[in-house]
Amino acid sequence: MSNSTLKINSDRLLNDINTLATFTEPDTPGWTRRFPSDAYIRGRQWLRKRFEQADLVTHIDVGGNLIGTLAGRQPAALPMQSGSHTDTVMGGGRYDGVLGTLGALEVARTLQETGITLQHTFNVVDYLGEEPNNFGMSCTGSRVIVGDFERDWLTRETVGRTFANAFREMGGDPDQFESLGAFDPSPRTRKLHAHFELHIEQGPVLEASGMHLGAVSGIIGIKRGVFEFEGRPDHTGSTPMTMRADALAAAAEVILETERAANETPGSVSAVGRILNEPNQINVVPAHVTFVSEVRNLDKAVILQLWARVVRMAERASAARGVQMRLHTVGETEPVIPQPWLYALVQRELHALDARTMTLPSGAGHDSNHMSKVSPVVMLFVPSAGGRSHCPEEYTAPELLALGVQALANCVLAADGVEI
Amino acid sequence: MSNSTLKINSDRLLNDINTLATFTEPDTPGWTRRFPSDAYIRGRQWLRKRFEQADLVTHIDVGGNLIGTLAGRQPAALPMQSGSHTDTVMGGGRYDGVLGTLGALEVARTLQETGITLQHTFNVVDYLGEEPNNFGMSCTGSRVIVGDFERDWLTRETVGRTFANAFREMGGDPDQFESLGAFDPSPRTRKLHAHFELHIEQGPVLEASGMHLGAVSGIIGIKRGVFEFEGRPDHTGSTPMTMRADALAAAAEVILETERAANETPGSVSAVGRILNEPNQINVVPAHVTFVSEVRNLDKAVILQLWARVVRMAERASAARGVQMRLHTVGETEPVIPQPWLYALVQRELHALDARTMTLPSGAGHDSNHMSKVSPVVMLFVPSAGGRSHCPEEYTAPELLALGVQALANCVLAADGVEI
Repeated sequence: MSNSTLKINSDRLLNDINTLATFTEPDTPGWTRRFPSDAYIRGRQWLRKRFEQADLVTHIDVGGNLIGTLAGRQPAALPMQSGSHTDTVMGGGRYDGVLGTLGALEVARTLQETGITLQHTFNVVDYLGEEPNNFGMSCTGSRVIVGDFERDWLTRETVGRTFANAFREMGGDPDQFESLGAFDPSPRTRKLHAHFELHIEQGPVLEASGMHLGAVSGIIGIKRGVFEFEGRPDHTGSTPMTMRADALAAAAEVILETERAANETPGSVSAVGRILNEPNQINVVPAHVTFVSEVRNLDKAVILQLWARVVRMAERASAARGVQMRLHTVGETEPVIPQPWLYALVQRELHALDARTMTLPSGAGHDSNHMSKVSPVVMLFVPSAGGRSHCPEEYTAPELLALGVQALANCVLAADGVEI
Repeated sequence: MSNSTLKINSDRLLNDINTLATFTEPDTPGWTRRFPSDAYIRGRQWLRKRFEQADLVTHIDVGGNLIGTLAGRQPAALPMQSGSHTDTVMGGGRYDGVLGTLGALEVARTLQETGITLQHTFNVVDYLGEEPNNFGMSCTGSRVIVGDFERDWLTRETVGRTFANAFREMGGDPDQFESLGAFDPSPRTRKLHAHFELHIEQGPVLEASGMHLGAVSGIIGIKRGVFEFEGRPDHTGSTPMTMRADALAAAAEVILETERAANETPGSVSAVGRILNEPNQINVVPAHVTFVSEVRNLDKAVILQLWARVVRMAERASAARGVQMRLHTVGETEPVIPQPWLYALVQRELHALDARTMTLPSGAGHDSNHMSKVSPVVMLFVPSAGGRSHCPEEYTAPELLALGVQALANCVLAADGVEI
């Protein structure tokens, strides 16, 4: 089966993207559709109808993930799966997540219209609540699937409902989490032949490089810690330099070491994005500074080296100033590396479709992080104008959106013929 | 006239301090008595009565300063003056300012009881509103006296009244500011023979040095600027280090240069006490950072050198990161150096009273800063326990409070005999 036989319908794709953009929360900036808002529920009702109109066998699983299935010729073969999410951050854009879900739907429709029945069953998935939500969770639906969910999160309460009830509103069934292993973090057997996620880059690299498509080399891992530095709120005029404990000066050393560590280690990024200073008055020595440092790389060993530099500097800079240090490690995400056959396949298909293809890592996390526990996963990127995302200005040109979905279709078809 | 003839009444002094401490704002921490609260008004009504009970000729001037006069033998001689303030910051303590006002009152009473009539008239002053207040002003009353006040400040409005009306509530008369030169910042002729301000140190130096009294070598000057750094709110994961503009990392360089500049220049202090970061999210590169850097020294030329270092680093650090910099210079206070005869007199009198006397600069500003436009000024310090001030824990032992007032009395008497 030659890829040239598959031709997606870009008008239909773009119409779907524009239609979904009409489901937004009132009185919010951009295209806001947060889990579990009415706009998100209504948008998904429309989406479910689109799945059904495409003759996909459609259901919502216990984790609230919307799944449309296109049966394959070999029922015993592991299914393939592709999708992303349709929720947004407050003030988000029209493409983050949306492209991956609607793109997978378009692939399924194109396969059917072309008269192609794959060997493998193909699932189109709209994962529930990928963005950070008011319950303090992200990748909500994919976590449930692979056991990355904790029982007591269900009782969290915000915006007038428990997390459990929010699942119910979205069609999920938290009463079955236990029996289906949602609370069991242990390793999983492989459940899928391959998992594809098409996404906007959310960064500036493709555009700045003049590229149209990105074959994603992996999703970089993160190590992130909350530092608390406790100094003393002395008067900035009457306290000699040698007798003060300046928590902000100590923090500044860590901010710079965080930056230096990544600058000096190719393929790394890092930042201190959040800092709070108390009492934050112009004539009082900073007494209490809380900040979050993070380092990211595709290689777990490198992440640990970067983090050790940050922690060493934090210890040294605070000790030198008589500042007490507390470190709370709050986040750690393992890097996700695609299996070589799948990554090679994607590189090949993307290059064949458009020579302006490059490889690059994903700096942001995705549902694919979690799905990697049960499947070989790989991601495809299209450019983000100006690297902007999570804002109303988020933009990818229509022809690039369509090119990305065409690339996804070609990859799905190619992977169907690979025996692993 | 030998100093040994003067003996202050420490019980009376301490009773006055304790009585004034009963006038505090309800539902506030510590001993809060802010301008223009009811507690401040009532405390001053009590204070005015104490002035009158001491047979001082008492009035409130147009700037709201409470002045009690003890006539001298030579009406043509320039008066001497001593005082401080009785307002506090929110959550302030019992001694900051209070000691200087009540101490001067005690000196006047002691002079009278000892049967000493000075050559020079002696004014006891409670300056209006020395602490930073809701109108954005500090040293309110002393500014009016010397022309450091601006006309349009009077229309500022907060806590339900204009600044002008707040003056009226405190017994001042803003309608006369113009005719009395309160808006005229030009240099003044000398109006006083000498001005003394006794104060708690508000720093840790005397206590840490095991000293009881401080002869203040001067009030250090300040140069202070608000920096605004404008970067770009990129995603911390998906934006390569070379393609971001991190405003917080640039600010961190300036925080450390501010610290280093003072560390490497003896007699200097500096700090970045205030910083605000936006959007302040863990996974967004800091895009907008506003911070205030200040440097202080007794020598104006050194202040300028220190400040040049800070600004140079700000320019370099922001340019290196593609961050836009704006600098608003908001504050500049000239150092105040006592005239040699007055400083020598204070050193001599304090040493004679207690050998545990040292010289040190004042790191904080005071009403004496402004009074230096019309008088030779000098300050006397007693220790602050733990260096704490502007907080309920502010403390100086009763015997040190009394020692300070005795030192003030001796200095006033000694200065009365000096012909300049």
